Amino acid sequence: MLENVSKALKGALLTCVAVGVAGSGFAQSLEEVKTQRGLTDKDILAAAKTYTPSGMKDEYYVFSSGGQAGQVIVYGVPSMRILKYIGVFTPEPWQGWGFDKHSKDILAQGKIRGKEITWGDTHHPGLSETKGDYDGQYLFINDKANPRVAVIDLKTFETTQIVVNPIFKSEHGSTIVTPNTEYVIEVAQYAAPFEDKYVPLEDYNDKYRGGVTYWKFDRKKGKIDIKRSFTVELPPYMQDVTDAGKGPSYGWSFTNTVNSERYQGGFGNGNVPEFSKRLPNEAGMSAKDTDYMTIVNWKAAEKLFQQGKYKKINDHAVISMDDMVKANALFLVPEPKSPHGNDVSPDGTHIIVAGKLDTHASVYSWTKMKNMIDSKDFASTDPYGLPILDLKRSLARQVNLGLGPLHTQYGKGDSVYTSLYVESSIVHWNYKTGKVLEKMPINYNVGHLVTAEGDTVDPDGKYLISLNKLAIDRFLGVGPLHPQNHQLIDIKKGQPMQLLYDMPLPLGEPHYAQMIKADKLKPIVRYKKKSFKHRVRPGREKVVRNGNNVTIYSTAIRSHYSPEVIKVKVGDKITWHMSNVERAQDQTHGFTVDGLNIHGSLEPGETSTFEFVVDKEGVYPFYCTEFCSALHLEMTGYLLVEP
Amino acid sequence: MLENVSKALKGALLTCVAVGVAGSGFAQSLEEVKTQRGLTDKDILAAAKTYTPSGMKDEYYVFSSGGQAGQVIVYGVPSMRILKYIGVFTPEPWQGWGFDKHSKDILAQGKIRGKEITWGDTHHPGLSETKGDYDGQYLFINDKANPRVAVIDLKTFETTQIVVNPIFKSEHGSTIVTPNTEYVIEVAQYAAPFEDKYVPLEDYNDKYRGGVTYWKFDRKKGKIDIKRSFTVELPPYMQDVTDAGKGPSYGWSFTNTVNSERYQGGFGNGNVPEFSKRLPNEAGMSAKDTDYMTIVNWKAAEKLFQQGKYKKINDHAVISMDDMVKANALFLVPEPKSPHGNDVSPDGTHIIVAGKLDTHASVYSWTKMKNMIDSKDFASTDPYGLPILDLKRSLARQVNLGLGPLHTQYGKGDSVYTSLYVESSIVHWNYKTGKVLEKMPINYNVGHLVTAEGDTVDPDGKYLISLNKLAIDRFLGVGPLHPQNHQLIDIKKGQPMQLLYDMPLPLGEPHYAQMIKADKLKPIVRYKKKSFKHRVRPGREKVVRNGNNVTIYSTAIRSHYSPEVIKVKVGDKITWHMSNVERAQDQTHGFTVDGLNIHGSLEPGETSTFEFVVDKEGVYPFYCTEFCSALHLEMTGYLLVEP
Repeated sequence: MLENVSKALKGALLTCVAVGVAGSGFAQSLEEVKTQRGLTDKDILAAAKTYTPSGMKDEYYVFSSGGQAGQVIVYGVPSMRILKYIGVFTPEPWQGWGFDKHSKDILAQGKIRGKEITWGDTHHPGLSETKGDYDGQYLFINDKANPRVAVIDLKTFETTQIVVNPIFKSEHGSTIVTPNTEYVIEVAQYAAPFEDKYVPLEDYNDKYRGGVTYWKFDRKKGKIDIKRSFTVELPPYMQDVTDAGKGPSYGWSFTNTVNSERYQGGFGNGNVPEFSKRLPNEAGMSAKDTDYMTIVNWKAAEKLFQQGKYKKINDHAVISMDDMVKANALFLVPEPKSPHGNDVSPDGTHIIVAGKLDTHASVYSWTKMKNMIDSKDFASTDPYGLPILDLKRSLARQVNLGLGPLHTQYGKGDSVYTSLYVESSIVHWNYKTGKVLEKMPINYNVGHLVTAEGDTVDPDGKYLISLNKLAIDRFLGVGPLHPQNHQLIDIKKGQPMQLLYDMPLPLGEPHYAQMIKADKLKPIVRYKKKSFKHRVRPGREKVVRNGNNVTIYSTAIRSHYSPEVIKVKVGDKITWHMSNVERAQDQTHGFTVDGLNIHGSLEPGETSTFEFVVDKEGVYPFYCTEFCSALHLEMTGYLLVEP
Repeated sequence: MLENVSKALKGALLTCVAVGVAGSGFAQSLEEVKTQRGLTDKDILAAAKTYTPSGMKDEYYVFSSGGQAGQVIVYGVPSMRILKYIGVFTPEPWQGWGFDKHSKDILAQGKIRGKEITWGDTHHPGLSETKGDYDGQYLFINDKANPRVAVIDLKTFETTQIVVNPIFKSEHGSTIVTPNTEYVIEVAQYAAPFEDKYVPLEDYNDKYRGGVTYWKFDRKKGKIDIKRSFTVELPPYMQDVTDAGKGPSYGWSFTNTVNSERYQGGFGNGNVPEFSKRLPNEAGMSAKDTDYMTIVNWKAAEKLFQQGKYKKINDHAVISMDDMVKANALFLVPEPKSPHGNDVSPDGTHIIVAGKLDTHASVYSWTKMKNMIDSKDFASTDPYGLPILDLKRSLARQVNLGLGPLHTQYGKGDSVYTSLYVESSIVHWNYKTGKVLEKMPINYNVGHLVTAEGDTVDPDGKYLISLNKLAIDRFLGVGPLHPQNHQLIDIKKGQPMQLLYDMPLPLGEPHYAQMIKADKLKPIVRYKKKSFKHRVRPGREKVVRNGNNVTIYSTAIRSHYSPEVIKVKVGDKITWHMSNVERAQDQTHGFTVDGLNIHGSLEPGETSTFEFVVDKEGVYPFYCTEFCSALHLEMTGYLLVEP
């Protein structure tokens, strides 16, 4: 009989998912759904780890670059739901970005040599730090194509400043902050003359240059202080991804370098015959076995800047390589070919570099390098007189990881995770022992990866996201241009990595992302009305004419504008101040005047200004573009333009 | 003993989720995760119904308008993952939209009175239909702010045409297709003169007009045929959402009308004193108890057009109200106040209208209305001579649903679902019996809703999405501008509605969406190379100078451009044809020349053209903006501009 009981128990256990738990009927339905949809137990576990029911909040924010979309993408972990695209370099009408005067003025800060630029190529977001940890206050983002850096205020999730690099012609390894956000680091990519002049490629070695710009951040003002910023001149290699030292390496920054060959390309049937028969760049720039890591003592550079040891180019302070070398503040150390990731360990003692053309990750010891630097123990110098440290004596170890290692992020303890681009895998290893612990396939061709707070002094482990470049067959087809695929992976200690979620990116090509604990951010839900100069209170609205300048002070509230009818004349210069006088959370009003390319998104408490001239007579309806109440359709008026 | 067995079994059943299923360890982990994350059994079931593991495809595409973002949003059901933002009225650099010649030319089609418009307010997507069912070939989308309609080809997911309405000053109830996509219907919103003239508001009743435009769609060309399109003139009410008849109502269209009061607003301290002391629009436009449904026989209108019975305004054919009335082709029937949704039943026999200021849905009987039309049995006429049908005799029934009913979609059988904006609920009812079956709260303030193929002749039931206007507390904060919240609801027959998923919309404010079975679409993954006139094969690249016109024929392939070095002079007119000669799926290359506001996204097989003048000498790197291979960083070149 006991045997029977045991059998009965076993049978019950084996089938219990199918027959229901505690009478809820839930387990049976779950089993049905699993069968219908072809889901495994693993899938259900992954679903449980990511599914975030209505009203439950995510644990982490991810701030991801949007690549060529020129925006920043914000999403939540573990739900992998995208929460916002923040308008940065590209105008975006839903949020009114680039359509009202305030945002137009910020975008105008980003003109290149007087030319309006309506997009950007964002690569590496940088969250502001205090003592090497994310503080949740600001986010910085770069534009590779048009060398620029933008500041985003994480109280409002809005871009508040765009700064153009006055001497670079392109950049890439940006933005990286120093441990207290003293500086925002921007790094050149394709070498070019600092001056805005034509210089023939024959003069490449002598007159083309790279560099690292240290943008001084004024935290109180929330702005980059252009006048207190400077650039360290570098050889015409292609500088790339950078990290700032911390702990024992505080005061230093580390920048990868590609194309130490100084190859200038020219392949193809161009119109410069002396170059046209050469190898393509991909070959010419990969001829040597190693490139360089560039080591800059930015504290020493700051001192040179303060001492006035710089020359001004395009009104920007440039510290020469010579002065940097003389000040013992600039060094090179060889790296495996075509490096991309450059990541300082949380304790600041090691730097991990991986190069896509070498199967190893190289773990550099800062102690070893610092000793050689202090004792002026150099292996050689480069053609520009930069001292070169010995590679082998700089390394703690090299670890064979697989094909195309690209970027490393830190987890808990000595755990690190490296993306393998060519192999389409993530590899988990120990950077102190060099032991490879686990490898996991991803879909497909991972570029950067990110772990929770993985580039701070205190990484959380827990979650890893693989920023894959190709999606191919992962999602429903949407034409020849596919989404990217970000894969969320559970990296909790003591268990194998588990793939949790495939997330398509519907707009943009993210390059890098950072993941920050959600409770570090304190976003606001309404604006302080006093912060807007041209705000009027309801009942005080007015239309003021001064010659052919017409200034309109309007309000918007559920669900009407005041005033509703305004008459102007063709050619009048109209300045329209519109105030949303709501206080309720999420009570946005929109504003457009039909056919005039005007649009505003007015959040509670906000006043926006629109400047325009109507050059054709007519009847121009205006209306609220945001579905704000049951009488939203009636929130409208007429701008009448007399001949 | 048997009692003991029974107890043991019961105990086992109660705890089986906690102790593991069939030794997999899965159930135990699942229970742990549930406890840790505070998930209920219901949550797990919802997770299982939506979670879509790596590589599994969604069942449905949703095509959603992007509101003020000016784009179309594509996402998958049940995963609720956004797959793509399609660039339509707003330039979008990631997909190169508005940056190369081809897309610039399409955007230029959308100029309003010569003015470039760089955004749109998209509202109602319309999938092409064959015999009243979605055929998966084309998608149409409107722009409320700048009265326009765009065509999207669902093979490429790209916008192929933009058509400006030459007589409307705004629109709204668009785009709706007739059952075989004979016409794409566009409807005016705020009344205005058809001519581009100033007309004082005092002449509103006589000279302001509404209308419905029937854009002829040429399916073979995939284009709207402007010359074969016409508008039916309507009174200066605010026309709104429209539906096309089918089955017995084929050949007719039904358009809601708001503001039958013809109120013109004027509230507030404007500069038109004779209007300024009036009530705001929201009050003045809500004075009467009813508005109108406008009933148009578009088949009869088509005949009038073919007979030349129209006048041309702005080179566009307008059929007068008088001619329509004379042809027995234009009628009104009263509707409850401030109607929005207007939805013809799958069999074409009924039309459901809901008005936000009335708690009822009104179910109109087409049979009854058609009988009155045929027997010229009218209750009265409006001030413009339009015959008005009797409301009560037109109705099949009115059903009390709740506060602020807005939009109705059809499910299986006689099931319908109506959004209640004010009450923040979805109500499930039977439109044949008038029985209210179930009500479910949503978060918060739902506008439109959509069911699977819910506005075709054959709705699927299964899924419903509530397009909520407010998110408030549902997600992590992202500043004063919140995302929207689309909630996926399981509406499988025979069980209560179940909330499955909250999906934040990170960009744009969707108004309406359509859900189509995924297997109806056949998107391509590469372009036919022959379709590009300026394509060159690798090895045939060239740079051709003709005076100061320089034409560059380039190729891109992993991972180099050919040619890599090009020399031009300041002021040269450059035409740069760039061909991606890849064939592999998802192998996109980007293209930019630094600092010149040029960007292209070149999918496999695609050739794009960039036209520009460089007006300053210098060194301009160009590079691939899409991470295309391990040697992607090296995919670069120099455009050298001599003084």
